[in-house]
Amino acid sequence: MTVAVAACQVSPVLGDPQANRCIVAAAVGDAANAGAKVVVLPELVSSGYVFSGRAEAARSAEPVDGPTIQLWCSLARTHHLVLVGGFCELGRDDALYNSAVIVDHTGLRAVYRKTHMWDRERLIFTPGDAPPPVVDTEIGRISTMICYDLEFPEWVRIPALAGAQLLAAPVNWPTYPRRDDQRPLEVVRAQADASVNRMAVVACDRTGVERKVGWVGGSVVIDADGWVLAGGNATAEAQTVTAEVDLDLALDKRVGGLSDIHSDRRPELYERVTR
Amino acid sequence: MTVAVAACQVSPVLGDPQANRCIVAAAVGDAANAGAKVVVLPELVSSGYVFSGRAEAARSAEPVDGPTIQLWCSLARTHHLVLVGGFCELGRDDALYNSAVIVDHTGLRAVYRKTHMWDRERLIFTPGDAPPPVVDTEIGRISTMICYDLEFPEWVRIPALAGAQLLAAPVNWPTYPRRDDQRPLEVVRAQADASVNRMAVVACDRTGVERKVGWVGGSVVIDADGWVLAGGNATAEAQTVTAEVDLDLALDKRVGGLSDIHSDRRPELYERVTR
Repeated sequence: MTVAVAACQVSPVLGDPQANRCIVAAAVGDAANAGAKVVVLPELVSSGYVFSGRAEAARSAEPVDGPTIQLWCSLARTHHLVLVGGFCELGRDDALYNSAVIVDHTGLRAVYRKTHMWDRERLIFTPGDAPPPVVDTEIGRISTMICYDLEFPEWVRIPALAGAQLLAAPVNWPTYPRRDDQRPLEVVRAQADASVNRMAVVACDRTGVERKVGWVGGSVVIDADGWVLAGGNATAEAQTVTAEVDLDLALDKRVGGLSDIHSDRRPELYERVTR
Repeated sequence: MTVAVAACQVSPVLGDPQANRCIVAAAVGDAANAGAKVVVLPELVSSGYVFSGRAEAARSAEPVDGPTIQLWCSLARTHHLVLVGGFCELGRDDALYNSAVIVDHTGLRAVYRKTHMWDRERLIFTPGDAPPPVVDTEIGRISTMICYDLEFPEWVRIPALAGAQLLAAPVNWPTYPRRDDQRPLEVVRAQADASVNRMAVVACDRTGVERKVGWVGGSVVIDADGWVLAGGNATAEAQTVTAEVDLDLALDKRVGGLSDIHSDRRPELYERVTR
């Protein structure tokens, strides 16, 4: 089945969840009107990213039943689509988590907490330790993980082996010294995540300089073979990147003749990886 | 230390090890004269690839102390360089292996047997089950694996975690339906292998149509960040792709602020990958 997948590369306002709800509602409405059935939002789009420390992050944190996720559920119901986005979660344990949700027209389907902490996130957030969820939706099985998680192929394997057809990843890719004549490596790594698993990947980046930190702005939709269908170039613009994605490709892991990218694995030889 | 690394994308003759020794001697000599200190050859460059079956492959197979590897050791000694290449190995057990060697001026340093069998290889070769070797050479720690092995990130992790600075991969990348407007996915995956490990990667592809099978011809030298330094585009031409590579980058796994691409792994959570 071919599905229109959109990544809403917006510019959230640091420390203003109310403003960010409005930004998200507008972007999701536009994407839905353009036909999107899966809409992905950036990491921490409820709060912004470049916190001075834990105390500032806590002021933008919300429980998973707070107003941000309530709104997102309402948007998914109103527009009848699957919505995946990142938010600053206040846990019942009062810890802060860099989290993502998968919601659909029926409501909240899964919460995921980022597991691999980038740079100073480790000073603010508690890392998750649960595997990425795989949610059976109307349009296929969808998983999520967040930004730096994508750089750990062992982690990407987990939802892929569990049958995910689309990995929808909220990201905030900070600018980093780069070669302008080549595709951003954040995108290259996401292409490989797709390709070695035959699983479609959509990554939704952000834009808008925040405390002098800029972003790649490389939101991208990638098919199950690893080809870029839309986006995937650095940009400073807010934009919605959309492509039609054939999620059925991910149901067949054959990659050439007798080869099957999952059953050709030799897991009994990989134990060193878990040490 | 910056080192000149060359991939000799030659066109071996199917079933003619003697001819292939000549082809390799000429290409390695040229690369050495141009200053290369590490020279990489394609997969099965001793024999060609598209065998009708096991019996035909056996006729081109040689033990590891046969004339092909003897020649390669001689070339490494004469030119004082590290040579990594693929050959059709006849084991002491009479099994055939799709193997690679690492040799330097002191002689044979390591033999590796391809572990992940592409397509019909499984009908001809016995898969290896030993991890990729990591060899301490004059110019740094070098590992090898072969072609399809590169598509299993768990496998690439093993030499990277063991300290390899350069992964030298003989490959035969058969042509596959592709988008001409994007970098070949074989190259994209190799870039990600480098990037998620901060380990330089050189892949040496072949050229020359063999029994109607063509090749990407995408030989590439990639730095420890994942950027393509040379090659990496599809071509039908025989060529030697060369770049100066800073192998010291691989000694530092930090990728931004407090982030370290290896120590940020959560191996205790990856056990599902080995099942």
